[in-house]
Amino acid sequence: MVRVVLIRHGESLWNKENKFTGWTDVPLTNKGEQEAKEAGESLKEKKMNFDVAYTSLLKRAVHTLNIILDEMDMCWLPVKKSWRLNERHYGKLQGLDKKKVAKEFGEDQVNLWRRSYHVQPPALEVSDERYPGNQMPYKMLGVPNLPLTESLQDTVSRFLPFFREEVEPNIHKGKNILIVAHGNSLRALMKYFETMSDDEICELNIPTGIPLVYELDDDLSILKKYYLGDDETVKKAQDQVKNQSK
Amino acid sequence: MVRVVLIRHGESLWNKENKFTGWTDVPLTNKGEQEAKEAGESLKEKKMNFDVAYTSLLKRAVHTLNIILDEMDMCWLPVKKSWRLNERHYGKLQGLDKKKVAKEFGEDQVNLWRRSYHVQPPALEVSDERYPGNQMPYKMLGVPNLPLTESLQDTVSRFLPFFREEVEPNIHKGKNILIVAHGNSLRALMKYFETMSDDEICELNIPTGIPLVYELDDDLSILKKYYLGDDETVKKAQDQVKNQSK
Repeated sequence: MVRVVLIRHGESLWNKENKFTGWTDVPLTNKGEQEAKEAGESLKEKKMNFDVAYTSLLKRAVHTLNIILDEMDMCWLPVKKSWRLNERHYGKLQGLDKKKVAKEFGEDQVNLWRRSYHVQPPALEVSDERYPGNQMPYKMLGVPNLPLTESLQDTVSRFLPFFREEVEPNIHKGKNILIVAHGNSLRALMKYFETMSDDEICELNIPTGIPLVYELDDDLSILKKYYLGDDETVKKAQDQVKNQSK
Repeated sequence: MVRVVLIRHGESLWNKENKFTGWTDVPLTNKGEQEAKEAGESLKEKKMNFDVAYTSLLKRAVHTLNIILDEMDMCWLPVKKSWRLNERHYGKLQGLDKKKVAKEFGEDQVNLWRRSYHVQPPALEVSDERYPGNQMPYKMLGVPNLPLTESLQDTVSRFLPFFREEVEPNIHKGKNILIVAHGNSLRALMKYFETMSDDEICELNIPTGIPLVYELDDDLSILKKYYLGDDETVKKAQDQVKNQSK
């Protein structure tokens, strides 16, 4: 039996300010740090060991992972960071207030951008400073084919090669894995794990800071799936995500 | 031209309490965190970019690196951790007060343990909880040939394969490298870089928290070597290390 634990980073500054974030590299709030600490505490309490951890290039995920590893006294754990675990790129919406966007374009259009599988938000120009090709990490790391915007489908497409090449071989070797990432890169993973339809994945809301545990066979069949948290806390956290643009 | 920057972690709890630390996994003090912050600030001020960072499995080094990367806004940087960058293992001296040991065994003996190249401190038994084979990171990572004690020569021997296999190929590729480690693993590196004699390396004192910059040719010839700090600060920090058991 192999364990894969997913954690969505805690509250970031722009979650709090209710802005579309995407690849903008905003820090955690104090509440977000506290959520990470509690996730680490519950993993430690359940004596969940890991062989390797994965995270994105965005500091809200990297910091969440660092806090968790500190809490578990496991900061020696190998960590691999990848842009393929980044949040979905929100194109020209990045930096805009979710409520203002809803007022300007209508709630239906915003729901389409946020909750459809194929629809992309308006694309950036390559000259825009929000285009990752103009930003240090992606230039330094020489990342190819950077997005100007992404639908959830696009996020799934760029996530999967990383998962298949980096994570799956470790699952087959029996390694226990911790993944700290974002709402949409984790949805991509869950769609793949659970062979969900495009519609099903759009309905799924992942709560922040609550570890989601998959126990898998070595052929990746799911033996068990559960949140490390009581039902009420999980439901409340999921509803909070769902209602963000309302 | 390739840049390799070495940083010795800032003050740890046992530096402050003047105990032999070795592989004991003690945290940084507030002063140690401040030293790391200042190292990060001066690297940022000099616009020193890196392509990859290396550190040990010990939290005083990992935390120093995390603080530096935060300060530089580079927490997306790939980081590789290795036990081969750990501090020298101090065997049965680990956990003992440096002054008490000097009183019991004489200052000459302590200087021999601390400052000779070939002499090992008394070895642990394999049943000792201080033996790394009984400790989680080394068991989990399946590290072979763990030490019961180490001379500086032993530290050099286990450090070199990592440097040759992991770091050197990246230097040849023209990558700029940041290494955050410990007094003795960094001495091992400097001995290798500068082809120092066994006696010379024993005389060398590396200050904590002050970046040491090597500018290298791609055949590893040293073009330039300097500390990022004024001469007086560097001298003071070196003397402090030298006088620790006095």
